[in-house]
Amino acid sequence: MLINCVAYEEGRKLADIDKRDIRNYLGRPGCFVWVALRDATEEELAEMQEEFDLHPLAVEDARHGHQRPKIEEYGDLLFVVVNTIEVVGEELKIGELDIFVGRNYVLSVRQHTEQGFLGVRARTEREPELLRNGSGYVLYALMDAVVDRFFPVLDAVESEFESVEQQLFSAKDPRSTIESLYYVKQKLTTLKHATGPMLEYTGRLFGGRVPQVCNGLGEYFRDVYDHLIRLNQSIDSLRDTVNTAIQVNLTLLTINETEVTKRLAAWGALIAVPTFIASVYGMNFKNIPELEWSFGYPMALGAMGLSNLYLWYRFRKAGWL
Amino acid sequence: MLINCVAYEEGRKLADIDKRDIRNYLGRPGCFVWVALRDATEEELAEMQEEFDLHPLAVEDARHGHQRPKIEEYGDLLFVVVNTIEVVGEELKIGELDIFVGRNYVLSVRQHTEQGFLGVRARTEREPELLRNGSGYVLYALMDAVVDRFFPVLDAVESEFESVEQQLFSAKDPRSTIESLYYVKQKLTTLKHATGPMLEYTGRLFGGRVPQVCNGLGEYFRDVYDHLIRLNQSIDSLRDTVNTAIQVNLTLLTINETEVTKRLAAWGALIAVPTFIASVYGMNFKNIPELEWSFGYPMALGAMGLSNLYLWYRFRKAGWL
Amino acid sequence: MLINCVAYEEGRKLADIDKRDIRNYLGRPGCFVWVALRDATEEELAEMQEEFDLHPLAVEDARHGHQRPKIEEYGDLLFVVVNTIEVVGEELKIGELDIFVGRNYVLSVRQHTEQGFLGVRARTEREPELLRNGSGYVLYALMDAVVDRFFPVLDAVESEFESVEQQLFSAKDPRSTIESLYYVKQKLTTLKHATGPMLEYTGRLFGGRVPQVCNGLGEYFRDVYDHLIRLNQSIDSLRDTVNTAIQVNLTLLTINETEVTKRLAAWGALIAVPTFIASVYGMNFKNIPELEWSFGYPMALGAMGLSNLYLWYRFRKAGWL
Amino acid sequence: MLINCVAYEEGRKLADIDKRDIRNYLGRPGCFVWVALRDATEEELAEMQEEFDLHPLAVEDARHGHQRPKIEEYGDLLFVVVNTIEVVGEELKIGELDIFVGRNYVLSVRQHTEQGFLGVRARTEREPELLRNGSGYVLYALMDAVVDRFFPVLDAVESEFESVEQQLFSAKDPRSTIESLYYVKQKLTTLKHATGPMLEYTGRLFGGRVPQVCNGLGEYFRDVYDHLIRLNQSIDSLRDTVNTAIQVNLTLLTINETEVTKRLAAWGALIAVPTFIASVYGMNFKNIPELEWSFGYPMALGAMGLSNLYLWYRFRKAGWL
Amino acid sequence: MLINCVAYEEGRKLADIDKRDIRNYLGRPGCFVWVALRDATEEELAEMQEEFDLHPLAVEDARHGHQRPKIEEYGDLLFVVVNTIEVVGEELKIGELDIFVGRNYVLSVRQHTEQGFLGVRARTEREPELLRNGSGYVLYALMDAVVDRFFPVLDAVESEFESVEQQLFSAKDPRSTIESLYYVKQKLTTLKHATGPMLEYTGRLFGGRVPQVCNGLGEYFRDVYDHLIRLNQSIDSLRDTVNTAIQVNLTLLTINETEVTKRLAAWGALIAVPTFIASVYGMNFKNIPELEWSFGYPMALGAMGLSNLYLWYRFRKAGWL
Repeated sequence: MLINCVAYEEGRKLADIDKRDIRNYLGRPGCFVWVALRDATEEELAEMQEEFDLHPLAVEDARHGHQRPKIEEYGDLLFVVVNTIEVVGEELKIGELDIFVGRNYVLSVRQHTEQGFLGVRARTEREPELLRNGSGYVLYALMDAVVDRFFPVLDAVESEFESVEQQLFSAKDPRSTIESLYYVKQKLTTLKHATGPMLEYTGRLFGGRVPQVCNGLGEYFRDVYDHLIRLNQSIDSLRDTVNTAIQVNLTLLTINETEVTKRLAAWGALIAVPTFIASVYGMNFKNIPELEWSFGYPMALGAMGLSNLYLWYRFRKAGWL
Repeated sequence: MLINCVAYEEGRKLADIDKRDIRNYLGRPGCFVWVALRDATEEELAEMQEEFDLHPLAVEDARHGHQRPKIEEYGDLLFVVVNTIEVVGEELKIGELDIFVGRNYVLSVRQHTEQGFLGVRARTEREPELLRNGSGYVLYALMDAVVDRFFPVLDAVESEFESVEQQLFSAKDPRSTIESLYYVKQKLTTLKHATGPMLEYTGRLFGGRVPQVCNGLGEYFRDVYDHLIRLNQSIDSLRDTVNTAIQVNLTLLTINETEVTKRLAAWGALIAVPTFIASVYGMNFKNIPELEWSFGYPMALGAMGLSNLYLWYRFRKAGWL
Repeated sequence: MLINCVAYEEGRKLADIDKRDIRNYLGRPGCFVWVALRDATEEELAEMQEEFDLHPLAVEDARHGHQRPKIEEYGDLLFVVVNTIEVVGEELKIGELDIFVGRNYVLSVRQHTEQGFLGVRARTEREPELLRNGSGYVLYALMDAVVDRFFPVLDAVESEFESVEQQLFSAKDPRSTIESLYYVKQKLTTLKHATGPMLEYTGRLFGGRVPQVCNGLGEYFRDVYDHLIRLNQSIDSLRDTVNTAIQVNLTLLTINETEVTKRLAAWGALIAVPTFIASVYGMNFKNIPELEWSFGYPMALGAMGLSNLYLWYRFRKAGWL
Repeated sequence: MLINCVAYEEGRKLADIDKRDIRNYLGRPGCFVWVALRDATEEELAEMQEEFDLHPLAVEDARHGHQRPKIEEYGDLLFVVVNTIEVVGEELKIGELDIFVGRNYVLSVRQHTEQGFLGVRARTEREPELLRNGSGYVLYALMDAVVDRFFPVLDAVESEFESVEQQLFSAKDPRSTIESLYYVKQKLTTLKHATGPMLEYTGRLFGGRVPQVCNGLGEYFRDVYDHLIRLNQSIDSLRDTVNTAIQVNLTLLTINETEVTKRLAAWGALIAVPTFIASVYGMNFKNIPELEWSFGYPMALGAMGLSNLYLWYRFRKAGWL
Repeated sequence: MLINCVAYEEGRKLADIDKRDIRNYLGRPGCFVWVALRDATEEELAEMQEEFDLHPLAVEDARHGHQRPKIEEYGDLLFVVVNTIEVVGEELKIGELDIFVGRNYVLSVRQHTEQGFLGVRARTEREPELLRNGSGYVLYALMDAVVDRFFPVLDAVESEFESVEQQLFSAKDPRSTIESLYYVKQKLTTLKHATGPMLEYTGRLFGGRVPQVCNGLGEYFRDVYDHLIRLNQSIDSLRDTVNTAIQVNLTLLTINETEVTKRLAAWGALIAVPTFIASVYGMNFKNIPELEWSFGYPMALGAMGLSNLYLWYRFRKAGWL
């Protein structure tokens, strides 16, 4: 689905144009065209391939979708794949943004994601002195927007983990604790998959030899790179913390098991000792003097009670009850 | 066993030729020969060695088989070993494809695998403009086909893992859960062995200095490389997830053990308390007034019942029963 | 909040100057200006951006705060972010020091931290022969001060760990032991976050090609680098030790559980055996000769006592009691 | 002990020579001498040092023995240390082969190993066209022989592991399972020590700048390197699998423990319930009607039997018995 | 404390000299001075700084002590910090040797260690042809001595581990086993701290560009490097083995726990079954025929004995007792 198709000159919007006019604008010096598609059909992609003369392998990747984040140069064409991540209910949903960047055009195709990029277009149009940098600046603006949207996702996972962390030491509902830890780790893996490869290739967009469209924008791409490093470090250390939490959880459960065993043993003793006393006076010996006493029975009950009081006191002191 | 032996010129099939004519065709400019063998005998290999003038160390490797994936240059000759993987019942079966690529010939020898490559030949013959690139393009087509066949294998292992994952939190049949996790990890190791070294050497077939037959095909080999990176990342993160699942499983079993202990203790209490009451009234004291009451017996049974009802209620509330 | 604003010439303090005079002093040869801000407002930053002609991306980072430690060159400007760490009660509090270094100025902005750097300024002013090196030397002095303050924090975490370590083998209060281990590891992660990236970039301030303001100060920055390596190695090996301690703790708890089980079993036997003896003499057989004996009852009690003495002796010897 | 001492010319054996004639042959062009020693004494080494003019540090290493695999160049002299491994009963025994390679001589000294290299000498003498390559080819032949002998050792360890693996899931004799896993891992560490450093230095014997005696033999040393990579990968993945097996073993033991607990509890219930019934009818109430019934006793026994039958059925169904 | 102060010329000792004469000897060509201090005071260091014109940052480090092993070049001056390790009782004690090496002097300062280096001086003086290499050779001799002293320390830790290993599978005193494993690992960490950084910087003393005083001594420093690699590999694989042993220990304890549970259950059954039989004959039914039999009582006791014999036999066969 075509979202919009706009021509720019000297950093300012010229006009919304029809896609059949693209070729005309591509010919004008100082002018570039930015087309945005959403869940593009095969026909739309074929059309764009013809308009912009895109490399067939890149278009093939965009058609198949489900690519890992990557960057590929085909002559002048820079083909960038970026993953988007949305929190949908309890799950993380992965989408994809494929960006074709040429000297005088940008074609962005977003797939499987509800997140739009109209805000990015609006923001860039408000800064014509920056947009004058051309298609490379649009690439920066799109990548910057995608990376900025990773932070709230990571925050969501972090606060999910923090609530599990509190549960951890309270030892309530251990089954749900471990299940949550498992799924937090899964989500971190998902985040890592989106940000790790992107970190790697963004590092090739500044310093040293860079693709031509990125020339002169090094400080901008370094900024994106910097955000990605921050993301990746947070993800890595959170993964490590989750691993520790899983191990700590196992330890706490072993402690818990021992405590349950102790408590059970204490209660068992509180039943077994009186039962033993009763069984003594259930013996059939001829002369057990106590049996003849008139206060024998209450005395026996009293002995049971006293022994239990004593045991109770001891168990309490030892922390078993 | 010779599968076929075909000469090509300018990207088009010339003819199925006899293997004794290979030399003639090798001499014709713009012409190359593609021979496919299956589970080749020593004689066939010796014959081919002579026809194509192959390096003895490479032929030695092909004769022994069971090589790890690798690439070796012997002057003009490029010797490539690729592993194939098939799902046979519950197991993964490893096969091997040895490819000798020269300036004007390709010799492919597949071993220990049912998977044929006739489809690859057919597909390449349908695209003469690409096949015109010569023997390097055939190498690409074979590697691409092998890599594409890894994906369904990985998918099979992934869905095997997913069914174990569901079992994991249901805590049913823990013995089979852990056994399955172990074998999933084994299969991932097998996959890693096939794809890891291949990833490594494919990276040397594009960019910078490449073997001569791969010249001008960089974008194609980069595409194969890209698929292999995707495979390897999926394998690595699945391995990591399996490790976590093994640890989570241990935790769940410890939780389970504690719960079993608690339930047993609850049932034990439901037997021990009435037994204690009975033993009290089994004492032989002269004057235990209750023993004389006419409703003494039902009262005692009632006391047993009531105490058990109370315990039952408490245990239920505490989640022990 | 402006803390102070001083001009220096040839390593000696010229005067406290008004921030509106900065431009005048920047123009004087051999003169540099050092401004210190604290929790700067947007207006103050904008003012300074104008005075020193700072790059907007760097100022943006300082405004947002919560940056990871990093170094960035914007032409002549060197932008350095350093994390500070304070022990506040049981927690580690992270602050930030942003340093803008130009050929003839230093602007330091500290945020979220109580620690001041007046001492650093005083110390540098006492060594005019070193301060003559200019703004790069001020950068060194600030970084050196920050790194020196990491050591007591690490010492605090180390002694916290050592007290946990003693607790570890005494096996008292395992729940608090594991909780402490978890939080020690968290603090080490925090320390690592502050020192790891700083180590990395400090390595780029000496040897080979360095930013211009650091020229001729290689030995000083190498000294800072060296301290950071020492910190990082201590942190890494302490993390590893904490991991081992967590695993050792689990093992000790399992040992503990077995010992509790044994002790319980021993006490259980001391109750069960006399109960069994009592139940034998509670049988209603017509002719149990012992029942008729006049010393039957004391004999039975004696049998109970003797069997328990024997069991006690055996359990003691086996180390179960 | 001198094993043999032979002079070669143009790839063909000239003669078994006396060690005092070595110097004469070293002077003849196109001629090289190959001396093999076994568990050499200090005198023999000193003699050889003089004959071949070996570097004192290299001879020192050979005298001390117990070196890690390494390669060292001393001017023209290449000093290579290789470890050999033999399966002796249940253990792996480590031996050592020290090889001094000069332009026109090879001195090999084997220590602490029963494995001889006469077969290598015989094989090389059968291929004069290869032996013509001189001392470097002899080095290759010796290294190739050593590496080939690692494979059966690894196979032995692998089949040892496979038999443990079968034991693993049968859960019989867990103590011997874990002990075997531990020793398998030890053996893999031993193998890794022998092959890891060798892999590393073999990579420096082909491609790029190589020691002079290895010139023109790149494809041969690459072949050795390739075998070493295969060995190392197998060792690494087997180590990883052993680690997983250790963890799986712990999980299986926890499962086992829970099952034992359940079975014990079931048997306990089968005793406790009848005991409870008996204790009810052991109460001394005046009017317990059942006590007067003539079928009271068999009825009570029947109640015990029935309750146990019911419990048995329930436990069976739940899989506890 | 000054240990000695000697001037050398052409590899031979000239004379023990007074420290005030150092300057005179430094001026003589072909002459160098070697001063050894022990736990130097601030004054001694200041004196030496002046005599040899040492860099203040290096002297600062020597004054503070507790440095990590490192090497630093200050112009011509090479400043080397080496850690020494002594076994003191059950502990490892870390000392430090600071070496300042100039073109024509060596100043060594040892701190916190009982180990002297007089033997090194004696040995070097016995080999004038080597000592002729000057101050670099003295540096080599000192480093070589320090590294040689690491081996017996590692051997001590290894044999400590081996005695724990034997204890491991005997399962006696698990608490001391795990405690020993923990402390063995601590000691390995200490060793690693001393040898790891030293390995790293020794690699920069030969091959490629080396500090001037090390020129022509490459083979000697490579020898030290080689020993350090051997040490580091042994430490690493021992650490890995200790980790495995910790995990194996946990597994063995779980096995042990299960066995204890089984044994307890068996003994429990041997008490519970006779108690049950006794309780049956403690029932008060009117007509329990056995109660009237004259051999009823011995028969009941016999039944108890027989059932226990049977249980004993079954438990023995199942390996529970």
